[in-house]
Amino acid sequence: MSFTAYMLDVISDTIYPARITIENGIFKEVTPITVNEHELDKIDFKGLMIPGFIDSHIHIESSMVSPAQFARIAVRHGTTAVVTDPHEIANVLGIEGIEAMIENAEQVPFNFYFTAPSCVPATAFETSGAVLDSSDIEYLLKKDEIVALGEMMNFPGVINGDEEVHRKLALAREYGKPIDGHAPLVTREDLDKYLAGGISTDHECSNVMEALEKKLKGMKIMVRDGSSAMDMEGLFDIDEGAQSIDFSGPMELLFRDIFERKVYYPLFDFIVSDDKHPNDLLKGHLNLSIKKAVSLGIDLLKAIKMVTINPAYHYNLNCGAIVPGAQADFVIVDSIYDLNVLETYIGGECVFDGENVLFDAPEIESKNTVNASKKTASDFDIHYDGDECEVNVIECFDGDLLTKKTTAKLYVKEGIVQPDIYQDVLKIAVVERYGGNTVANAFIKGFGLKKGAIASSVAHDSHNIIVVGYDSQMMADAVNQVIDDKGGISVVSEDFADSLPLPIAGLMSNEDVYDVAKKLGILHKMVEVLGCKIEAPFMTMAFMALLVIPSIKISDKGLFDGENFEFMDVIIN
Amino acid sequence: MSFTAYMLDVISDTIYPARITIENGIFKEVTPITVNEHELDKIDFKGLMIPGFIDSHIHIESSMVSPAQFARIAVRHGTTAVVTDPHEIANVLGIEGIEAMIENAEQVPFNFYFTAPSCVPATAFETSGAVLDSSDIEYLLKKDEIVALGEMMNFPGVINGDEEVHRKLALAREYGKPIDGHAPLVTREDLDKYLAGGISTDHECSNVMEALEKKLKGMKIMVRDGSSAMDMEGLFDIDEGAQSIDFSGPMELLFRDIFERKVYYPLFDFIVSDDKHPNDLLKGHLNLSIKKAVSLGIDLLKAIKMVTINPAYHYNLNCGAIVPGAQADFVIVDSIYDLNVLETYIGGECVFDGENVLFDAPEIESKNTVNASKKTASDFDIHYDGDECEVNVIECFDGDLLTKKTTAKLYVKEGIVQPDIYQDVLKIAVVERYGGNTVANAFIKGFGLKKGAIASSVAHDSHNIIVVGYDSQMMADAVNQVIDDKGGISVVSEDFADSLPLPIAGLMSNEDVYDVAKKLGILHKMVEVLGCKIEAPFMTMAFMALLVIPSIKISDKGLFDGENFEFMDVIIN
Repeated sequence: MSFTAYMLDVISDTIYPARITIENGIFKEVTPITVNEHELDKIDFKGLMIPGFIDSHIHIESSMVSPAQFARIAVRHGTTAVVTDPHEIANVLGIEGIEAMIENAEQVPFNFYFTAPSCVPATAFETSGAVLDSSDIEYLLKKDEIVALGEMMNFPGVINGDEEVHRKLALAREYGKPIDGHAPLVTREDLDKYLAGGISTDHECSNVMEALEKKLKGMKIMVRDGSSAMDMEGLFDIDEGAQSIDFSGPMELLFRDIFERKVYYPLFDFIVSDDKHPNDLLKGHLNLSIKKAVSLGIDLLKAIKMVTINPAYHYNLNCGAIVPGAQADFVIVDSIYDLNVLETYIGGECVFDGENVLFDAPEIESKNTVNASKKTASDFDIHYDGDECEVNVIECFDGDLLTKKTTAKLYVKEGIVQPDIYQDVLKIAVVERYGGNTVANAFIKGFGLKKGAIASSVAHDSHNIIVVGYDSQMMADAVNQVIDDKGGISVVSEDFADSLPLPIAGLMSNEDVYDVAKKLGILHKMVEVLGCKIEAPFMTMAFMALLVIPSIKISDKGLFDGENFEFMDVIIN
Repeated sequence: MSFTAYMLDVISDTIYPARITIENGIFKEVTPITVNEHELDKIDFKGLMIPGFIDSHIHIESSMVSPAQFARIAVRHGTTAVVTDPHEIANVLGIEGIEAMIENAEQVPFNFYFTAPSCVPATAFETSGAVLDSSDIEYLLKKDEIVALGEMMNFPGVINGDEEVHRKLALAREYGKPIDGHAPLVTREDLDKYLAGGISTDHECSNVMEALEKKLKGMKIMVRDGSSAMDMEGLFDIDEGAQSIDFSGPMELLFRDIFERKVYYPLFDFIVSDDKHPNDLLKGHLNLSIKKAVSLGIDLLKAIKMVTINPAYHYNLNCGAIVPGAQADFVIVDSIYDLNVLETYIGGECVFDGENVLFDAPEIESKNTVNASKKTASDFDIHYDGDECEVNVIECFDGDLLTKKTTAKLYVKEGIVQPDIYQDVLKIAVVERYGGNTVANAFIKGFGLKKGAIASSVAHDSHNIIVVGYDSQMMADAVNQVIDDKGGISVVSEDFADSLPLPIAGLMSNEDVYDVAKKLGILHKMVEVLGCKIEAPFMTMAFMALLVIPSIKISDKGLFDGENFEFMDVIIN
């Protein structure tokens, strides 16, 4: 394959016409050419040729589709590679789940690079479907498909010298694979200890000062622009007060450039999505993030490097630039500024022709991972001996991982504590789905449901079944629908009921992302009809089980105090 | 040698702390490191480590000092390499001169890369000291020190198929060395023919449209910021009318970005100086040009790439980035923005410690290249039989290569045409200095000298002795001073006389650039006292012999009509 095109050289940051030869999926020759006046319109590609985009940190499970289906939508947006952490499926199915992901990924023309999930389960306060110990990590790190140790979320473990955690870090260093970080607001001596483990990236910075400290200490900074967490604006919003901080030594270098001159670009290395929900994924991927970064003050070519050559260089991937010897992954866009994708090529083959994606998505065989008996209304009752009682309540906020502890006085009827629509205090429960058949019940404020219930087997990070509702019977019905679907999302009320089955580990569908997004949209509408005020009810609900983010959450083992990292009682006495 | 530093990675465009090991002048290891809170001030270098700057097109002769002396001042400004075209000395001394430059260059720790001068002599209408034919070019292209064929100024020769010109181009292609261009305002079909010769760079663009056309046709664009020609502003000054031009096909790509969004950066590849006079060279070099480019809208890191990795990549130089395997040429600057040079290293050795340059400049043995007999006043007389006559006059403008043809009526005394101070019409002459002993006389307007004369052996491109003055005796004295000095610049009047000897080919001094600039400043003051209105009288005078730039010039063979490319008479009758 040989052709001419105007191409973007992300090493020199220029555009020039070139003759390009591809052999066996690899760029063989990239030769700058001169073009005759009358041959200008004979250049083979009408658009601009740029390297394919690389998302260097994404959990594909959040897109609710298989890797193969993810690839089919990603190539429409110019993405040709991802570094993906199969952390969610690992919590459900362990190595077996990771290998199913890899196997599915290998069947489509798309570059999936995996990381070995470092923190499965996330805490000891919940029941997960699997545990990955250091010997499992070693097994994974030996694989060519695994390019790094996945985000080390257990920063207390690193800082406090937890042996098993440090064994995992040592293995990654031994196998010469980079270690991804996850250290929100970790600073000073704690950050030093964290970094001493060899952790080299961070995608959790939420302000410039945090990014600055991490960058100065040698981390590579991932700017995150995803569905769950959108930190990008915060990273460009300089608090004037920060200028009074006393920097000295080499810190002064970047300090001056950033604060006095608003020169941000040397600070950031990658743009990542972390999580991309089906409906967001339909709209775009890194192509949109680049434009957003530019609108916030990042130089355009720098933004493009952050999703091409920079991640390729860091993770040692043979892509990310149009140079001889690299994989022939490239995109034809209408202009460097608009980045509308006209065609996408992977390994020299056209995979998206501007209208159609030219490959199919093989299915992942669905093994039932929902090992739970059917529930009845009484499973969701909280008992109290009295007429009224005071309870601890999780207060949640739309799309936010953080919650606030509050309390409410509730009426007790026939020994059962009653939710209260007028106070917007509903019931929430986590149903263990790995054979234990336990149910943990509590109360939640913020959802605004007036009737019915919603349930989901997507509940970070252990992915038990989580349910929110007013009525115990409806809650049982919603959970039973999820069980019937072998995992998924359900909405149940007196008037209607519907569900989105997610049979792959209770997290993903084999269906097209268009279909998944459409069904999710219908469910969202239904939840709205039930009175819910929250824009992303299932996502918000899924975070209610994420114990590592404060301040009050729930696992299958009970209501959890995220400040003191211990269980707490629902009823206050 | 091993140390830690915050370094600028010009591939990923980020700054990070790294441990760097240098062995035998080569970067052996560049490892990103993490830095402990309490070790931040233990980083070995207090400033930021960046790759040394590369000037990819400069004629060192314009700095009036030897390559070794040039190196001593350049390293103070962070320059560690130049691609230099020894075109001037080649016109005087041919291959012998080029080899003397190379030999001198090799004795100092600085990276000199030479090009083979493609156009010696510049025209057939002048007497030069040497001719470089295609066999000479082949001899030069075989040398490792020669990295390219020098700027092909003879664009009519390329366009019209001149055989000898095309033989030179073919040799460069055969030896796999790039060909530098020089094609001011060459456009459309002519540009196509020029490019078909394999010419890949241009440093003559004076407006965005010209750069755009050349870029779209595949040339690499050098933004020039030198002493003689300062095109930089023009390249960023978009004529609104240009927007009405009809672009189609791939041209539309850059067109939109440049005109609609003022996105310039993908358009330019290199920043070069072309010529740097001694006094300008004292002030700065590429460090200043980067800041100027930024002030005009070029992204800072892009500007740095234009003088580091981009030229290294194009000319196949093993420098320009801090990566394993590259020459350890680097600079410590106070900040990425201010670029004040704290230290400069070449091949891992410190060559400038912030105060002193740590190497000496060996001399080039001065062989007398001024082969001319002493002149008398009568050599500068123009005879006419009558009382008055009309003459053609060169009208010049301060620092401008372009001249305008004008005429004047002059009084004739005892058969000799007299200059006229009141009309500011002075005498100008070119004295052949290669043994022919001819003198060509004419008249010039614009200098404003009221008395005395100035002479110089720097007179582009053949470098005969050029002289301007009111009085024939003073002109003879000024020329004789240059002959006595074995080349140089002289000022002579009834009240004072002084000179700057340039004994290396009549172009350069072995002295320090500080001393040369100081003496040049004294001569400039003297010329001012003599009534001259021009700020750079010697430079302006040197251009009066540059026949290829219109519209009226003078060579040792006579007054020259640069529009019709033929000689013309001084006296109109």
